[in-house]
Amino acid sequence: MASSMKFTDCSPSATVRLFPSARTRFRSSDGAVLFHRLLDRSRPAFPRTFVSRSSASTLPVISASISTQSTAEVIDGKLVAKQIREEITAEVSRMKDAIGVVPGLAVILVGDRKDSATYVRNKKKACESVGIKSFEVNLPEDCTEQEVLKYISDFNDDPSVHGILVQLPLPKHMNEQNILHAVSIEKDVDGFHPLNIGRLAMRGEEPLFVPCTPKGCIELLHRYNIGIKGKRAVVIGRSNIVGTPAALLLQGEDATVSVVHSRTKDPEELTRQADIIISAVGKANMVKGSWIKPGAVIIDVGINPVEDASSPRGYRLVGDVCYEEASKIASAITPVPGGVGPMTIAMLLSNTLTAAKRTHNFQ
Amino acid sequence: MASSMKFTDCSPSATVRLFPSARTRFRSSDGAVLFHRLLDRSRPAFPRTFVSRSSASTLPVISASISTQSTAEVIDGKLVAKQIREEITAEVSRMKDAIGVVPGLAVILVGDRKDSATYVRNKKKACESVGIKSFEVNLPEDCTEQEVLKYISDFNDDPSVHGILVQLPLPKHMNEQNILHAVSIEKDVDGFHPLNIGRLAMRGEEPLFVPCTPKGCIELLHRYNIGIKGKRAVVIGRSNIVGTPAALLLQGEDATVSVVHSRTKDPEELTRQADIIISAVGKANMVKGSWIKPGAVIIDVGINPVEDASSPRGYRLVGDVCYEEASKIASAITPVPGGVGPMTIAMLLSNTLTAAKRTHNFQ
Repeated sequence: MASSMKFTDCSPSATVRLFPSARTRFRSSDGAVLFHRLLDRSRPAFPRTFVSRSSASTLPVISASISTQSTAEVIDGKLVAKQIREEITAEVSRMKDAIGVVPGLAVILVGDRKDSATYVRNKKKACESVGIKSFEVNLPEDCTEQEVLKYISDFNDDPSVHGILVQLPLPKHMNEQNILHAVSIEKDVDGFHPLNIGRLAMRGEEPLFVPCTPKGCIELLHRYNIGIKGKRAVVIGRSNIVGTPAALLLQGEDATVSVVHSRTKDPEELTRQADIIISAVGKANMVKGSWIKPGAVIIDVGINPVEDASSPRGYRLVGDVCYEEASKIASAITPVPGGVGPMTIAMLLSNTLTAAKRTHNFQ
Repeated sequence: MASSMKFTDCSPSATVRLFPSARTRFRSSDGAVLFHRLLDRSRPAFPRTFVSRSSASTLPVISASISTQSTAEVIDGKLVAKQIREEITAEVSRMKDAIGVVPGLAVILVGDRKDSATYVRNKKKACESVGIKSFEVNLPEDCTEQEVLKYISDFNDDPSVHGILVQLPLPKHMNEQNILHAVSIEKDVDGFHPLNIGRLAMRGEEPLFVPCTPKGCIELLHRYNIGIKGKRAVVIGRSNIVGTPAALLLQGEDATVSVVHSRTKDPEELTRQADIIISAVGKANMVKGSWIKPGAVIIDVGINPVEDASSPRGYRLVGDVCYEEASKIASAITPVPGGVGPMTIAMLLSNTLTAAKRTHNFQ
């Protein structure tokens, strides 16, 4: 986001300052959970198809309309992600029993970035936890684009692999587009292929896969019974992997969507009109309380490190939204960490299951 | 658009009432021109690549900021379309002289709808006027989907055909998606393929073709030097062929875009915030003066018939925007007819030229 957006730290702690490298996003999905609520699990309410036969449970009904409560409901992504993993586990097991097929996810990691290695390890662990078979390829930083393409081609042809994920970023000497476009559209569980994005944008078309993070955002709204139809929504950020698909998803569910970005002149004015805010810019505490309409629902995708001398690591993670201020004004909000983060991997598992079901025509 | 949108006729004539079938859109691009201005042709200002070598000319500078003028500048689509056809004529001629290739457009018409036949005839005439070769196939209403697919396949393989257009709507017994997706992506001059829409949506990706009508809208803004970057834009309507790609194009040019549609609760409130309004809903005079911010620029895609006893035809064509009211408030506005309509065919010719140039790697 650019200069037109105000950017200060709203933390009450004087020791907390922004890293110079605050644009770097932490994508780990299993950081410490700041907030935890015991949710009502008695009522059935899972509207998504992939969980049709699982032991669905429900989360509190939250209204996106004006609320007078002074503390927002916490949208507990870690808990929802756990529920989803349980549902996927049941489905994987049912599929194996019925037709003897185990869904498989291949992850290609190039180079030795520590953060990438962590994400890949987390994905592998998540696969194992639900019974999805994981295939992993680690290639050296200096390998060629052709070598990566060869692995993709092999996985495209391998019937035991239903989803293929290339961990980003790739080394600079490789053409990311060439590599991502080489993944078979039927196995593009990241949903980043332009054909998927196009289908997402078009009425009457269905994408094969919805990108994991925006899918996770919408899933949180669904699971918390937050109505989308007819609501004013503002998406902050227009990246290919979060902002743009999130806006298209919200529009597909009949929200009236505005996209705020680095060139928006008064992002606060427009954001303050929103019933639902999805923020995905990677700027710590950018969205202040003054940006938020009373009773709005906030999905905070940002995971930003800020200095914190009191933490053993020397920093802590915060969202794009100033949580302390927002939680007094919003009706519901995702914490960081423990909000959208855990949902991304859950949706990757969901997409892999979907791919396997589709390939084997298993309902 | 649905019930939440107010819909009355703002015409001063008491005899003018809406047709019961006002949702039917007239797409003819050569209706009578309501407005005509002699434009300054002295300065070069064509930012689009396809006219890089042609005799570019400029149109008046119009500010989208607040204006005190009581009558909006008329954005003369008929004149701009004529200029573009002249530029294309020059390019077609240059290409023929240089490499002996003549761009070719194939149009497939199924059935005997009078309006469709008119559009196809107009497209053919437009091709002839710029030197593009046109191929036409007329199939009977009761032909099979297979027959249509066979023609598409033949045109896909024919090197003298650079663009393929299937006139819509198709007879009800055919699957429109199957047929549109059969057109080779390199020849999809309508730009309706999801892969093109996806590339339009994604930063860092380029569509092979931009759908003609929204491309025409943006081209009008460019030719009138109306700035888009940083502006608030509202697109009314979210169709696959106009609203959605228009919103994506505006966002790609750094506008802050909101999409208003049938489920929007207060379309007037949001529309009134816009510096640029593109309306594409097909509802006569829906957008009143009260919806418009002083100085806004209005691109009116709607072409709607309203009863008019004084006309020999018994009706006249009006836009989605109440022109009489809007022209007193806006800084610039497209008339109907003579605004966006003529641009659609001009952009089809432009896309066909682009296809031929790309195929033959001709700059």
